[in-house]
Amino acid sequence: MAKIAVVGSGFIGRAWAISFARAGNEVAMWDQAPAATEGARDYIAGVLGDLEANDLLRGQAPDAVLARISVTPDLGEALRGASHIQENTPEKRDVKREVFSLIDGLAEADAVIASSSSALLPSTFTDHLAGRHRCLVVHPLNPPYLIPAAEVVPAPWTSPETVERTRVLLVDAGHAPLVMKRELDGFIMNRLQGALLEEAFRLVADGYASIEDVDIGIRDGLALRWSFMGPFETIDLNAPQGVRDYVERYQGIYENLFSQMQRRVDWAGPVLETVEADRRAKLPKEKLVERQVWRDRRLMALAAHKRKSEEDIGK
Amino acid sequence: MAKIAVVGSGFIGRAWAISFARAGNEVAMWDQAPAATEGARDYIAGVLGDLEANDLLRGQAPDAVLARISVTPDLGEALRGASHIQENTPEKRDVKREVFSLIDGLAEADAVIASSSSALLPSTFTDHLAGRHRCLVVHPLNPPYLIPAAEVVPAPWTSPETVERTRVLLVDAGHAPLVMKRELDGFIMNRLQGALLEEAFRLVADGYASIEDVDIGIRDGLALRWSFMGPFETIDLNAPQGVRDYVERYQGIYENLFSQMQRRVDWAGPVLETVEADRRAKLPKEKLVERQVWRDRRLMALAAHKRKSEEDIGK
Repeated sequence: MAKIAVVGSGFIGRAWAISFARAGNEVAMWDQAPAATEGARDYIAGVLGDLEANDLLRGQAPDAVLARISVTPDLGEALRGASHIQENTPEKRDVKREVFSLIDGLAEADAVIASSSSALLPSTFTDHLAGRHRCLVVHPLNPPYLIPAAEVVPAPWTSPETVERTRVLLVDAGHAPLVMKRELDGFIMNRLQGALLEEAFRLVADGYASIEDVDIGIRDGLALRWSFMGPFETIDLNAPQGVRDYVERYQGIYENLFSQMQRRVDWAGPVLETVEADRRAKLPKEKLVERQVWRDRRLMALAAHKRKSEEDIGK
Repeated sequence: MAKIAVVGSGFIGRAWAISFARAGNEVAMWDQAPAATEGARDYIAGVLGDLEANDLLRGQAPDAVLARISVTPDLGEALRGASHIQENTPEKRDVKREVFSLIDGLAEADAVIASSSSALLPSTFTDHLAGRHRCLVVHPLNPPYLIPAAEVVPAPWTSPETVERTRVLLVDAGHAPLVMKRELDGFIMNRLQGALLEEAFRLVADGYASIEDVDIGIRDGLALRWSFMGPFETIDLNAPQGVRDYVERYQGIYENLFSQMQRRVDWAGPVLETVEADRRAKLPKEKLVERQVWRDRRLMALAAHKRKSEEDIGK
């Protein structure tokens, strides 16, 4: 197993530490604010207990996983011997540029340097580096120890070997990497999410549907099949002769809809009053944190269910 | 409990019969082709066995549910005493207009007449009817006995009472109705699906992602949270202060993406070669039917899991 350095010990850094350590890797966490790092291991211990309760620790005891996670105030020590570095500092281009300079100067010659950035293209903060060929983005959804998908996004100068080593590391850690051919704003997942959200806000703004109607249509409708097949396999199975048959039968309908979707509704405009009023009526602001705990419990139960279904029924 | 008439005994008609009968309603099925109707009860018996195995029959024996489903070659007999009629004939405007004329003439005075149409607006095939105030669309995803969401779509002349009675009937049958304020092409679910598919095809056509990358991003990523929360609750929980905070932080990113999404890729163009080649490499055409059986088993297991999670962790 490898040594992984996690740079930045906030929510995402801690979650990556759990994911990598669960897979058997040694993890060294570093943060420029020692206070942040200090709370990290206690927080992680709590999560590991929940994961064990859902049989999501690969049969290991929480303590055994926790023992593989260390925290250090010394960046050089965190990076020493690490073959993969996962960076989780704030989403600001200048911050990332500086942090990557620092890491590139201190890391082992053959280490891969990955950023968890969700919004910055890797080319915008790695162009100046001697080791830019070994830099890329690995963007998770939160929390990565419960959501397998992670986007691997190369800059134009990222070497194929860097991409491949990262892909293998992620698969070994139980992740499902999406390997982009080249970088693009929003990567894959936020583009898909954005396309759907634009239509959702438009339907609400135009008075056709409520917030709850949209959420029902996804959580009690479309996302059931999507949650174990994805959208392409879904349409492939939704016409007798497969995806070509589906396109021949139904593209006309979608083409007509697309032409109605060219107008953008300002999410922060009047529609936001409706969206916020509906959401706050269902969930008062003071219950948001409690509901996030509920969400993560549901995600854990779903992860356990999917693993069992893949074993019992097939993947 | 009510008597429901199911008009058209194809795949969707049979599935509705199961859903309504499971909830305790008497169901009378009719088809203009007696041969189609004859196979229907055998088919339904098979599905009921699978549902029982997943504890999805509300504790009833399959035979008890099947006993509530009758088939008749006489439309008048099927409609007699029925308070709700669910029509499932081919998606052709002329066919629907004729069938609706027939039903409107024969049905009880206070019966609701619903079409399962996925593509036709209710106004386009009910405008000529004396009883057009009691007509609407109730569009399910397939199969409705496993997928709760169903879209209720009124024509401009559909009475509020018709909409409300339909909503209550669906809720009693364990469905999660989306009640549209007024009709719109594609309703809600196909518009959301279409928006997402357009971006999926564009990402593949432009060479950024593979079919499999898109499917991973949804099935191992976005659709996990969506499958129990929907997209609005997801973003509401994805910023510390809720959905307003989310919009203030991230709308800029999505606005930029939207401006890149105005170009439509022809799904039947060169991209279809890629999509079809990738899908057929993963699943040969002769295995499509087998995979549909797998899909329905996974859907059943997921339905059972969701019910249990709602009980254990909360809805």
